[in-house]
Amino acid sequence: MRAARLHEYTDDMSDALTVEDVPRPTIETSDQIIVEVEGAGWCQTDNHIIEGMWEPYAPQTLPMTLGHENAGTVVEVGDEVTTVEEGDAVICHPVRTCGKCRACRQGEDMYCENSAFSGLTHDGGFAEYLLTSERSAIVLDDVDPVDIAPHADAGITAYHAAKKAVDDLVPGDYCVLVGIGGLGHIGLQAVDAMSAARTIAVDIKDDALSLADDLGAAHTVNSSEEDVAEAVDAITDGSGATQVLDFVGADATTDLAPDIVSPGGDHHIVGYGGHVHRPSQDLVDGEFSYRGNLVGTYTELQELVALVEGGQMHLTTSQYDLADINDVAEKLEHNEIEGRAVITP
Amino acid sequence: MRAARLHEYTDDMSDALTVEDVPRPTIETSDQIIVEVEGAGWCQTDNHIIEGMWEPYAPQTLPMTLGHENAGTVVEVGDEVTTVEEGDAVICHPVRTCGKCRACRQGEDMYCENSAFSGLTHDGGFAEYLLTSERSAIVLDDVDPVDIAPHADAGITAYHAAKKAVDDLVPGDYCVLVGIGGLGHIGLQAVDAMSAARTIAVDIKDDALSLADDLGAAHTVNSSEEDVAEAVDAITDGSGATQVLDFVGADATTDLAPDIVSPGGDHHIVGYGGHVHRPSQDLVDGEFSYRGNLVGTYTELQELVALVEGGQMHLTTSQYDLADINDVAEKLEHNEIEGRAVITP
Amino acid sequence: MRAARLHEYTDDMSDALTVEDVPRPTIETSDQIIVEVEGAGWCQTDNHIIEGMWEPYAPQTLPMTLGHENAGTVVEVGDEVTTVEEGDAVICHPVRTCGKCRACRQGEDMYCENSAFSGLTHDGGFAEYLLTSERSAIVLDDVDPVDIAPHADAGITAYHAAKKAVDDLVPGDYCVLVGIGGLGHIGLQAVDAMSAARTIAVDIKDDALSLADDLGAAHTVNSSEEDVAEAVDAITDGSGATQVLDFVGADATTDLAPDIVSPGGDHHIVGYGGHVHRPSQDLVDGEFSYRGNLVGTYTELQELVALVEGGQMHLTTSQYDLADINDVAEKLEHNEIEGRAVITP
Amino acid sequence: MRAARLHEYTDDMSDALTVEDVPRPTIETSDQIIVEVEGAGWCQTDNHIIEGMWEPYAPQTLPMTLGHENAGTVVEVGDEVTTVEEGDAVICHPVRTCGKCRACRQGEDMYCENSAFSGLTHDGGFAEYLLTSERSAIVLDDVDPVDIAPHADAGITAYHAAKKAVDDLVPGDYCVLVGIGGLGHIGLQAVDAMSAARTIAVDIKDDALSLADDLGAAHTVNSSEEDVAEAVDAITDGSGATQVLDFVGADATTDLAPDIVSPGGDHHIVGYGGHVHRPSQDLVDGEFSYRGNLVGTYTELQELVALVEGGQMHLTTSQYDLADINDVAEKLEHNEIEGRAVITP
Repeated sequence: MRAARLHEYTDDMSDALTVEDVPRPTIETSDQIIVEVEGAGWCQTDNHIIEGMWEPYAPQTLPMTLGHENAGTVVEVGDEVTTVEEGDAVICHPVRTCGKCRACRQGEDMYCENSAFSGLTHDGGFAEYLLTSERSAIVLDDVDPVDIAPHADAGITAYHAAKKAVDDLVPGDYCVLVGIGGLGHIGLQAVDAMSAARTIAVDIKDDALSLADDLGAAHTVNSSEEDVAEAVDAITDGSGATQVLDFVGADATTDLAPDIVSPGGDHHIVGYGGHVHRPSQDLVDGEFSYRGNLVGTYTELQELVALVEGGQMHLTTSQYDLADINDVAEKLEHNEIEGRAVITP
Repeated sequence: MRAARLHEYTDDMSDALTVEDVPRPTIETSDQIIVEVEGAGWCQTDNHIIEGMWEPYAPQTLPMTLGHENAGTVVEVGDEVTTVEEGDAVICHPVRTCGKCRACRQGEDMYCENSAFSGLTHDGGFAEYLLTSERSAIVLDDVDPVDIAPHADAGITAYHAAKKAVDDLVPGDYCVLVGIGGLGHIGLQAVDAMSAARTIAVDIKDDALSLADDLGAAHTVNSSEEDVAEAVDAITDGSGATQVLDFVGADATTDLAPDIVSPGGDHHIVGYGGHVHRPSQDLVDGEFSYRGNLVGTYTELQELVALVEGGQMHLTTSQYDLADINDVAEKLEHNEIEGRAVITP
Repeated sequence: MRAARLHEYTDDMSDALTVEDVPRPTIETSDQIIVEVEGAGWCQTDNHIIEGMWEPYAPQTLPMTLGHENAGTVVEVGDEVTTVEEGDAVICHPVRTCGKCRACRQGEDMYCENSAFSGLTHDGGFAEYLLTSERSAIVLDDVDPVDIAPHADAGITAYHAAKKAVDDLVPGDYCVLVGIGGLGHIGLQAVDAMSAARTIAVDIKDDALSLADDLGAAHTVNSSEEDVAEAVDAITDGSGATQVLDFVGADATTDLAPDIVSPGGDHHIVGYGGHVHRPSQDLVDGEFSYRGNLVGTYTELQELVALVEGGQMHLTTSQYDLADINDVAEKLEHNEIEGRAVITP
Repeated sequence: MRAARLHEYTDDMSDALTVEDVPRPTIETSDQIIVEVEGAGWCQTDNHIIEGMWEPYAPQTLPMTLGHENAGTVVEVGDEVTTVEEGDAVICHPVRTCGKCRACRQGEDMYCENSAFSGLTHDGGFAEYLLTSERSAIVLDDVDPVDIAPHADAGITAYHAAKKAVDDLVPGDYCVLVGIGGLGHIGLQAVDAMSAARTIAVDIKDDALSLADDLGAAHTVNSSEEDVAEAVDAITDGSGATQVLDFVGADATTDLAPDIVSPGGDHHIVGYGGHVHRPSQDLVDGEFSYRGNLVGTYTELQELVALVEGGQMHLTTSQYDLADINDVAEKLEHNEIEGRAVITP
């Protein structure tokens, strides 16, 4: 089958992946399934993987097929699979989990001690077929796999962080969302669907802010034109934002926390380009937190699918052939992709 | 009356405060009270105030009487005071709050929009008499004010952080406490009293670790001799600590988080000498948080008094005359005070 | 001034209250205010008070002016009032709280140990002027006091219960609301504004269900025509509702819990006509709870006002003169009032 | 093998179960294991099962081997078992769960949609061998299976309820525990280990109260001699108990709630002999809840084992031969068993 594979880490996105023929995967254990990939979202994390940025964090053996946002049709199932069957349209959570360790048993399957991550530690979905487990698959009722694929990672990451923020948002509170790109525009809709908080969307591009506006943001701030702290202060009448969702995670955005987070509030780190770097005293004085955010769990993907099927979550996507995959890598590097790119192998 | 006052910021602790005669305070509004100070704890924060470290965070007009950990006897009450009366032994929360702003109404009185902080923004208790409000006073039943005074700030700060940590600790979990000094030895007892977690005490001094051991720490680690991350890894069999209480807040201690906090856990910043400085990706990959911790609320001081009166919280103190106050400042600067110093004006 | 007063408990609503002249109240303590009442909502609880149903629960001295859902204009303030001033339009929380007891200090002011309840334990707002405290008043920006008055009790009671329910609702979950009257139609909007749960509205009247439909209920069930348990089972595909908000509280509605609440879920008791009566084993087997719900707190009224001012909460009201107050009592008794009746003294 | 089986529902405990020869179970699926039973606790629920009280709640086919509190040694494992091996000492959670349904994926495995309950819906451990799944087994390090067996149900049920109560207990709060028998004496220790709350133990027997006293109860009340509501009122100075753990669940004990639960508190239903029966208005006025409590989850059993291995939980047991099993049934019926009876097949 055809697959787009990483052979060595590089900063040159124009020649990042090699599209080549590889053997179709085969089922090895009784809970595994094979999915014919119809849509596989391209993610900022793919660029980071290509650059070698995840090598210190996750075991990787090159060459490896990338692609962790996958959806398609089940074409083969292991002997003891009971929850999906051949022909089912499914979205695939990127992580295969053991279901037996304490973390899995607590429902925190993203902390699974025996996990495999498609497209990060094992072959992913930029290929005609994907090997995964029934524990990763959610059957789709009314949604096209191509349309929903990016929710498998971008979606649940944004949803997961938004859900944590929403826990502490009551009517009258403000929520700042920094970076209204692939994840941010999902996070914005999730906050709106699950709370009555007033949203403040921050981005450097007017297009992104225009999208935020269309999606219902109460306020927008262009951070290349305005001082964000001053803008938030004016909008919130000095009280600040109870929750900040930072989809950028750069030095400049994490630095905003002491000035825009209200006492007891949280600055959620979702994007991860830069550093968190502040005096400890800042955190003490404002009693705010920097909270890390990983990909959402399997059950959170179920919840997100419910939002999508209920019409409360819209995703802006554009489709690309597998052969054009390096173009996508380059465009994202230059911030030239609207919404989310989906490869259709 | 006699009072120990700061006239200018300095790094020279030997001549930090001036003990001098000042007018006794008088009641100005109907909810105020005057307390004859019997015990006033000396705090690391007093050193930081003297160095000018709080000037950017809190409005201060010098000269000012320091002292924010006060207890004594009520000697005068305003017209509408109903909850304390002359002759009552009381411990004083350091903050006078308005009781009317939204934060106060939510019970989050440390976020009061109209607060005054004894010994930080207004005259404190290193003096014969202290002006405060009935909203700050808690009547003591069976405890000597001199013995309990440090709980007014050190106590509730440690208790407040411990209470947050305990919310996420279940039997079998590990809790690391870094720095077993004035706050740390209180925090250790609070974690023990309120959870069944296994505690790991970390310090650079054997004396501190010996105290930790006496107070029931399950494990101790001398960080000047052992690598803390390796030690925690060995003790926890690789799973890490669900919660870390960092009573130091130095660069070296905040840096431990990625290596010792288990996924989804928290590194609580209580001490504030240094910086938090890590790649955003660390927080994402481990999904941990750096959580700032301010002084506890009034109701948390009530809870802490209940612990003390119930015999579940022991404080190691040493007493000093008001005249010797600069000696105390110097000793603390050189880490030469065991437990907590209490001034007895 | 004119006031509608209860002289003795009765089941005859046609002659329940006497509209008569009484002295205008005067300010007695420094935190009190006098409000010229513009709107005072009539509540099912008023009928219950008239019947003597609250006499065992709350100290009452007759005659007493009823009316606990009040809004109007501040016309006089005590010496130390700082948060409102003459001329301010305000909505009044029904309870005057002390602000000093532990419950108040925790933000749980509905549990105040020294409270007075307008129209229940003290004279209320079915009168030209109301004596209350600044702690009960919230200044209104853009809302007419007549329109918002019922939110002072019906509103926050429904909001308070909905907020508790929403804490356990995630996308894909179902929430059943039983009784879409004065409180129910507010609760429905609150659940919608603060969650992405799917709502199922239950009532015996088609008019009420039609209103529910207009307000966005996902499903409606007429309980005089359908078996509610079967209907909920069909709608939820056998999984049941995570949360049930019971605005009726009759024997027949509380009896639904074992059949419609999913494991671990809650049946919130808001209305209180009848009994909770089930075998203990039912609660064990389904691990569900019957959760009592009191009026919301002062800060919850702030949140509800934010919802109203943000256009996310609409109230159906009809206005009546003070002289017609017994007609209102009778109509409500016979279930003939649409939405909420507001007296305009 | 020998097994004690129920052939028909009966109220006559003297002849309840038949000890007979049955075939040893065999492994059918790849995740199953066979445990040689060393200890199997007898539970009040066994009496209830014999009486037919669970027949309306759980599917049962007679004859059936009872016994749901099992511990022993693994003697055979299925093909894909990875977490236990032959020779391991294990305690067995009574429920075999699928691990795939949404409830399991959330960590709420007691709500598993495809569960089997040893000794309730399937053959249990009053036999030489037990068939279960690796998902039910927890390996024991330093504990004798006979000593720990009752924790498999009595233990986690009491622990589970105590853990919920502890979430809302802060220092100074009171926790009432009604019924200090098999479950109650575990619950008391769990509350003590995990909180600093003051405990009030209530029972009708002086022996039980003496045990409570030994285990650290702060107060004891003999309900056959004293009025419980008056006693709690006196002990708590009128404030009531924040949390009540009712291990009896009789009409008389559930009736206590309005009088002893403080506002916003919970009355946890763990035992289930009688009814909950109160006016809805009681729940509204006191804003308390009746909260049902099921058996604890698998991860809660892990936490309880940690408590036991850490020496924070002591169990009073007495051992009986399989042949004497009906004597045990009778003795428990007459309240003549101290602590917990363990059958040793």
